[in-house]
Amino acid sequence: MVETTPPHREHVEQVRELLEKFHVENHLLDASAGERRGLESTLLHRQQAVELERRLRGLHAADLADLLESLPPDARELVWFHIPAQRRGEVLLELDDAVKENLIAHTSKDDLLSALAGLDADDLAYLGKDLPADIFHQALEAQASEDRRWIRDSLSYPEEEVGHWMSSEMVVVHQDQTLQAIQALLQQQASLPTHTDKLFVTDQRGLLCGVLFLQDILVNAPDVQAKQVMTTQVVTFAPDDDADDTARAFERYDLVSAPVVNERGKLVGRLTVDMIMDYVREAAEKDALNVAGVVEGEDLFAGIWASARNRWPWLSINLLTAFVISRIIGGFEGTIGQLVALASLMPIIASVAGNTGNQTTAIVIRSLALDQLHAGNIWHLFRKELAIAALNGAVWGVVVGLFAFVFYQNPQLSVVVTVAMMLTFVLAALFGVSAPLVLERMGGDPAMGSSVILTGVTDALGFFIFLTLATLFLV
Amino acid sequence: MVETTPPHREHVEQVRELLEKFHVENHLLDASAGERRGLESTLLHRQQAVELERRLRGLHAADLADLLESLPPDARELVWFHIPAQRRGEVLLELDDAVKENLIAHTSKDDLLSALAGLDADDLAYLGKDLPADIFHQALEAQASEDRRWIRDSLSYPEEEVGHWMSSEMVVVHQDQTLQAIQALLQQQASLPTHTDKLFVTDQRGLLCGVLFLQDILVNAPDVQAKQVMTTQVVTFAPDDDADDTARAFERYDLVSAPVVNERGKLVGRLTVDMIMDYVREAAEKDALNVAGVVEGEDLFAGIWASARNRWPWLSINLLTAFVISRIIGGFEGTIGQLVALASLMPIIASVAGNTGNQTTAIVIRSLALDQLHAGNIWHLFRKELAIAALNGAVWGVVVGLFAFVFYQNPQLSVVVTVAMMLTFVLAALFGVSAPLVLERMGGDPAMGSSVILTGVTDALGFFIFLTLATLFLV
Repeated sequence: MVETTPPHREHVEQVRELLEKFHVENHLLDASAGERRGLESTLLHRQQAVELERRLRGLHAADLADLLESLPPDARELVWFHIPAQRRGEVLLELDDAVKENLIAHTSKDDLLSALAGLDADDLAYLGKDLPADIFHQALEAQASEDRRWIRDSLSYPEEEVGHWMSSEMVVVHQDQTLQAIQALLQQQASLPTHTDKLFVTDQRGLLCGVLFLQDILVNAPDVQAKQVMTTQVVTFAPDDDADDTARAFERYDLVSAPVVNERGKLVGRLTVDMIMDYVREAAEKDALNVAGVVEGEDLFAGIWASARNRWPWLSINLLTAFVISRIIGGFEGTIGQLVALASLMPIIASVAGNTGNQTTAIVIRSLALDQLHAGNIWHLFRKELAIAALNGAVWGVVVGLFAFVFYQNPQLSVVVTVAMMLTFVLAALFGVSAPLVLERMGGDPAMGSSVILTGVTDALGFFIFLTLATLFLV
Repeated sequence: MVETTPPHREHVEQVRELLEKFHVENHLLDASAGERRGLESTLLHRQQAVELERRLRGLHAADLADLLESLPPDARELVWFHIPAQRRGEVLLELDDAVKENLIAHTSKDDLLSALAGLDADDLAYLGKDLPADIFHQALEAQASEDRRWIRDSLSYPEEEVGHWMSSEMVVVHQDQTLQAIQALLQQQASLPTHTDKLFVTDQRGLLCGVLFLQDILVNAPDVQAKQVMTTQVVTFAPDDDADDTARAFERYDLVSAPVVNERGKLVGRLTVDMIMDYVREAAEKDALNVAGVVEGEDLFAGIWASARNRWPWLSINLLTAFVISRIIGGFEGTIGQLVALASLMPIIASVAGNTGNQTTAIVIRSLALDQLHAGNIWHLFRKELAIAALNGAVWGVVVGLFAFVFYQNPQLSVVVTVAMMLTFVLAALFGVSAPLVLERMGGDPAMGSSVILTGVTDALGFFIFLTLATLFLV
């Protein structure tokens, strides 16, 4: 019977229960002793530590990382120091940035160096930016000189470029080799790099000339040469290609791995689907947080002060737009003083128009991400969104007009509300299409901040239009 | 030299230019003839059609799908009907739901049947729900009887379960077979199913007992039996497993493919990373649209009426909350009438508190998605978010208080603004943590709608607290 890896949650849950039991028992111990006793010295603690280490051994590095991320600081350190030093390297690779920083800061230099000792060049390059400079350089010294060069090269690429994500581990064969010779070559290796679905084939000049799928080696006769059965139509990437486009290409062409070549066609690295999936997930999470105005991922247990400041940049932008809006309303205080009903109706227009603008923006951001927008259809999109806004503005404007009539029995007021809704809807759609396009054109991330900007603009417009119409026609 | 697949954008761009040229020329043709001439009959058109077909042949099915999605209706149909019928099946598989529906509706029954004829059972099951019932049944009849059963089984699983995404194509070997025998078996097959990184190994009872990586076949001696080199610690899934959890497991354990087994341990299907990536991307896009209040993906060129209605459900919820808020303010019209400055200050509190609540919600949604929240740390999170809110409320409350003082020189008003900000911030944090937790507990998607609900609640609270304090202390 196959020993299936049990659902990770179950394992992780067991460790959590164990930790809670510790917590309770240690607490009782403290209470009964009447003073805080050094835990290391108690027999009970030693038994618990053995039990904890046994449980932790059964967990995959990715599951250990998940567990650490979900624990409060004291339990987190307890678990971290019960993971053997040589396994901590793998776990660091799987942790999210905030928790990684936190644990690196709490680990001694020697422990960190032994954690890093087991990692290969790719992994070390990946951790490079998070490590203290002196420790990173010492770990670098332990690598072979060609690996050192690789790590430095890799670190020179920003996270948005393929070079940052490529690996140096790949199997390269020559186009004249027979499948038999290639299989003999593979047999000399204990194992192939992960996600090796194909080997890279080079020609006399050492340039990439095709790829040989593992299955092609298995299904063809052994005396055939690589060049006879290799695939020559290959999706390749350049080290400075955009990571977003690359992720799309991996999905589009259902790739497991792909060669990275320089402008001369020389192989410089390999991309694998697991790195791409990590990138896609990280980018999606970052977008979701950015849209809500959180600058970066927070450690769930980060200090209050650090977390509070992480939310300030967007709060202050939001506050600035709110001040502008407040001054716009301030300009109409005379009108509001004469017809106080305006104060209770104006938030409806601002709120609903903000929502409709955000809907438009979401559609545009999605089309931009899917690369569906180009000169030929952008006007079509503008016209369509304006038509939808006019239609929805009319429908919902009448509803709000009726609502206003029920409470204030003032027909002119209802007409002004309805017209203000329509105008604000159309302008919200105009800005809803333009904001992400302008942010994208300026080289920014269209998802980032368009919601705060858009809501600010639609609120300001909604209040201004409504109060202007009210001043002209109602008082 | 390797013939690398050129960046798809370039190819797609060429077709787009061609289409625009057609458009201009056809337009000139129409104008000079003075009447709308049947395009089929002109020589020019025939040349263009040949050129278009040549260009389309060079495109990958996924690129054709992208192109179709980005074209307005007339150009889209022109391209669709110049794709050979037998390729249209592949293209349908890659299209997003909205455009797929649109093209299926515009294709004749015979054309659809020949498009579907080239698809295997998995693909047909995937398209099942989008096809008209009679055409689907006719296509089903053309399949072998075991494939028919497979398709019916597959369709019985909802999209959120593994059963919907699994494929029937897999290579299964017996544990006693030697690697040589297995290789001979593979050589009889023209090609292996895509994303075959491992074969599934079964025992005497036909139950899964391990997996054999292709590389294990290549690097081990040919006379070794499968059971000697197979991996027995396997990540397996059940057909009714949650697709989200499964996607996380694929990332966590860096899987390319994985067996799906029933409760007895019998193999029932195979999952591959390309389906998982599609699922992850679709789910992320759906979330992004839902957060903004768009129910489902829209065809960029869908009719205005259909698009407008797609945005109504959230607009109406938003409108309801806006009505409630309007009535809350309405209850304080007497106070506002006496101190009109309240009308211009109140949107600041509502807007900034809404933002801080959304930040909290984003953090909670992320932690829920990463499965980091459990009974042991939920109170920690509550306390932390409340502390951050109190801190931020105090800091920004003072800023708004100063702003109010600059414009109104009323110290009591400034104090009321500051206190109202603090209270609203703390309540926004309370709801920001609770809303996604309650939605999750109720079995809903915590991302869906929490933004609209939260903004409604914080607006209502912000206005109510501020206006109540103002009524008590200012007028």
